[in-house]
Amino acid sequence: MKFSVSGALSYEVKAASTFILNIHALRTPAQAVLEETFKLDPYFKSEELAWPGENRYVRFEVTEPAYLNINYHAIVDTSVKLTPADQLVDTPVIELDATTLHYLSPSRYCQSDKLFRFAHSKFGKIDNAFEKVLALTDWIYENVEYLSGSTNSQTSAYDTVAEQAGVCRDFAHLGIALCRALDIPARYFTGYAFQLNPPDFHACFEAYIGHEWILFDATRLVPLNGIVKIATGRDAADAAIGTIFGDVRCTFVSASCQLADKDFEPYYYKGDNIQGLTYL
Amino acid sequence: MKFSVSGALSYEVKAASTFILNIHALRTPAQAVLEETFKLDPYFKSEELAWPGENRYVRFEVTEPAYLNINYHAIVDTSVKLTPADQLVDTPVIELDATTLHYLSPSRYCQSDKLFRFAHSKFGKIDNAFEKVLALTDWIYENVEYLSGSTNSQTSAYDTVAEQAGVCRDFAHLGIALCRALDIPARYFTGYAFQLNPPDFHACFEAYIGHEWILFDATRLVPLNGIVKIATGRDAADAAIGTIFGDVRCTFVSASCQLADKDFEPYYYKGDNIQGLTYL
Amino acid sequence: MKFSVSGALSYEVKAASTFILNIHALRTPAQAVLEETFKLDPYFKSEELAWPGENRYVRFEVTEPAYLNINYHAIVDTSVKLTPADQLVDTPVIELDATTLHYLSPSRYCQSDKLFRFAHSKFGKIDNAFEKVLALTDWIYENVEYLSGSTNSQTSAYDTVAEQAGVCRDFAHLGIALCRALDIPARYFTGYAFQLNPPDFHACFEAYIGHEWILFDATRLVPLNGIVKIATGRDAADAAIGTIFGDVRCTFVSASCQLADKDFEPYYYKGDNIQGLTYL
Amino acid sequence: MKFSVSGALSYEVKAASTFILNIHALRTPAQAVLEETFKLDPYFKSEELAWPGENRYVRFEVTEPAYLNINYHAIVDTSVKLTPADQLVDTPVIELDATTLHYLSPSRYCQSDKLFRFAHSKFGKIDNAFEKVLALTDWIYENVEYLSGSTNSQTSAYDTVAEQAGVCRDFAHLGIALCRALDIPARYFTGYAFQLNPPDFHACFEAYIGHEWILFDATRLVPLNGIVKIATGRDAADAAIGTIFGDVRCTFVSASCQLADKDFEPYYYKGDNIQGLTYL
Repeated sequence: MKFSVSGALSYEVKAASTFILNIHALRTPAQAVLEETFKLDPYFKSEELAWPGENRYVRFEVTEPAYLNINYHAIVDTSVKLTPADQLVDTPVIELDATTLHYLSPSRYCQSDKLFRFAHSKFGKIDNAFEKVLALTDWIYENVEYLSGSTNSQTSAYDTVAEQAGVCRDFAHLGIALCRALDIPARYFTGYAFQLNPPDFHACFEAYIGHEWILFDATRLVPLNGIVKIATGRDAADAAIGTIFGDVRCTFVSASCQLADKDFEPYYYKGDNIQGLTYL
Repeated sequence: MKFSVSGALSYEVKAASTFILNIHALRTPAQAVLEETFKLDPYFKSEELAWPGENRYVRFEVTEPAYLNINYHAIVDTSVKLTPADQLVDTPVIELDATTLHYLSPSRYCQSDKLFRFAHSKFGKIDNAFEKVLALTDWIYENVEYLSGSTNSQTSAYDTVAEQAGVCRDFAHLGIALCRALDIPARYFTGYAFQLNPPDFHACFEAYIGHEWILFDATRLVPLNGIVKIATGRDAADAAIGTIFGDVRCTFVSASCQLADKDFEPYYYKGDNIQGLTYL
Repeated sequence: MKFSVSGALSYEVKAASTFILNIHALRTPAQAVLEETFKLDPYFKSEELAWPGENRYVRFEVTEPAYLNINYHAIVDTSVKLTPADQLVDTPVIELDATTLHYLSPSRYCQSDKLFRFAHSKFGKIDNAFEKVLALTDWIYENVEYLSGSTNSQTSAYDTVAEQAGVCRDFAHLGIALCRALDIPARYFTGYAFQLNPPDFHACFEAYIGHEWILFDATRLVPLNGIVKIATGRDAADAAIGTIFGDVRCTFVSASCQLADKDFEPYYYKGDNIQGLTYL
Repeated sequence: MKFSVSGALSYEVKAASTFILNIHALRTPAQAVLEETFKLDPYFKSEELAWPGENRYVRFEVTEPAYLNINYHAIVDTSVKLTPADQLVDTPVIELDATTLHYLSPSRYCQSDKLFRFAHSKFGKIDNAFEKVLALTDWIYENVEYLSGSTNSQTSAYDTVAEQAGVCRDFAHLGIALCRALDIPARYFTGYAFQLNPPDFHACFEAYIGHEWILFDATRLVPLNGIVKIATGRDAADAAIGTIFGDVRCTFVSASCQLADKDFEPYYYKGDNIQGLTYL
């Protein structure tokens, strides 16, 4: 499926600063970046910190005070894989490889160690991992209010479970924390999302089930197959849109994702015969 | 109903210290203290900080290192009042008197301000205050595990809603916080409790409904009419069994409550025609 | 000393709501309210919940959606008492009366129990209570940045000690928590403050030393003798400017305090021979 | 330098469980493991999840209830590198490689984002990174009390900065959080430590300065050059001694580190001409 994505960010840079952005569409075997432009105005030399299959961080130094405008645009061809639920068999901890095991540990915004009892009492008795994650995603959708501005960059899953309001980032963090508390590896996922309204960068999460990273989105704001993947990480600390070192104020953020193809068939987890969706 | 109650506390006092204990049975028009002994071994002069209807704090100074044993015993005649649910009409904030209004404010262990959304989304639509508090008490009983040693003196309602384990004190704090978040005044209640197993000091809470302080106990560990009241307060910070200033280690705590009457008919909130129970 | 004080508040009331305001100048033997007007536009009937020497809460019901403007104005004659430091002898816990003891307990925004070690390691060795509170007030001034908008209504002393930014409310909460951790009773104090820039309602705190409630202000923003007292309480939960039950949005707040006398001699704690200042 | 190290752990395994241990001495170019035994009693098959230079996790499944005893023993030859302070030049963020950048992000126990102001106000003006980390390590040593049992597995740097007590793990977490808040990459470091009293597994931290991972230990409990390295990670979530999935109770932990060489010259950061110490 082809999408045309754009991201725009503006900053007031008050003194020399270093930026690390993570807004480039990922290049993977299943996600081809057909065209791409990245512009800094005024111009500063930037470098990409990346290797195949991993997040594409772009780093640059703004050497003097400036009003900086950043524009990213790409045409991306994505594909997703659907796996029938009965093939999504639980992967016991004993079979996880070392890389995946890391996604069982608590992280800054996903304190799974503090939500152990909560997760087990609510979802522990559900039969298998896929059903568990569907159930906890539903629980988040039904119990947490999507409310712009209700949280900030310090808000964590532990807060969200009690305060029950947040944005996509908070929904994702809570989903991840609950998965990990249930011994299901889970990671943060950012992207450009089709039909997201109002348009913005989006965050959801993946859980590792049946040797696949299956996508889940407790916000239900967008079709699961309408996302252009930017990055994954333990939580927003790893995959922030922008990490900035210096005296800088963000003045504008926007993101959009348009269909550049015909015949998009939106896919959600609903009805019978739900299949798990994977971005490879 | 007559009860024979006892409390025993031991402390290793390492340096001169001041103690404030709150273990004396309250004297009220509805609770007569028929006999009472209070012993400090070794002996130190103590004074009672009290006035009718309020908590009976006992204060004394241990002027040198000591192994201190405290024993309290009383025979108490209690009575409770039952009010039919249909008379427990909601009291709007506009009608509360100044003293009662204080029990709407958040306190150290009952951060009702942070549980506003949680309380309203779970219990906000229930018809009236009495039903709301019954429902939230049930919710606590069903969702929080009673687990000795799982919490400490810093644990608050905000923790308990996420961690879902605690002791009677934590159950009470969460009940209070949820009531206040729903604009129902609520306060902490301590006592000697009949049939509590293992025997210990007990804590539960009261909510102000229909101009009565109605008792609730989310632990369901004891009959509601089997308690000898010690104290009320905003939370455990006001009604701690012992508040100690100095280098002191508690080495032993026990409490018991035996029936000194015949024919005790245990009362719980269950079945139809629930009536609200009040300790006057 | 005579001051002319004003407070103005505007609210968008979206549905029937109950307000409790605490903006009236306190009437005490040492603070005479010479003239006073309080206006609600549109008009709603209000009542004062008060008794001599205690906070003057005003309560009213707004029975329908409205844009509500509240104006308070008063001419107040205040007096303060200065006590030489050598008379401010420490009051041991054993001598405090029951009312004052409450101000040793931790409260919603002042978790003195969690700052015990911090308080003792920093200030525990200082000779006497007055010097301790001066020292901790200085420490707050030097270590916490006064930064509008850096905190919110949920911020507590425990946050401020780590995050080191806040407004007058946060400075006061931290001062109170540290005093209580050091066994010095302390309470929250609100008022109209002369020379506060920008003008607003002000908060500071009192510590109980030498049988007096001595005023301290870690913000150093105003002269200690330039305040018209509104209220005291355990923390901001007891003495909020406005406590509102209902769907209401605050759209405007202002407060001012002008000298209505000549010859004001500002008083601060500085130099030698510091005397403790009390509002009776 | 040769050391003989031992670790012993006992567990009561109540139901089938999976263990991941991280107690094996690391194998690096500068740390040779000369002899090594690892025993499970009763025996279960285990596998090592590792690759050169990274932590050596050992995983195994205990398939039925058991009293499990784990013993590890090794003879290890370590070497350290000393770099004169004047060569430890600051590495700006623009020059860090992608792997190192991760150690600037906040993590579960090291919420550097919440300690930004604290770190900058206390240490921000110090000239260079090495001096900064020496100063913050001193600050931790002087302000945090080493107190066994004062913290638990949920305690984080944010708590420690306010509560000011902890064990080696907490000292390390606070050091790491402060470094990251100052834009200095930092990571958690575990090992067997010579002269640690009482003997136990030890934790300290490394900061990335002058393109070296320099070791720091705010506890000052052991010579910096007396450690046999086990693991590094973002914080204790990555490098826990044991991570256990199942119903298991730890009943015993011990660790020891004896000199197997002569002529050990203990090295600490003190006096003039401090050189940074690195475990390669």
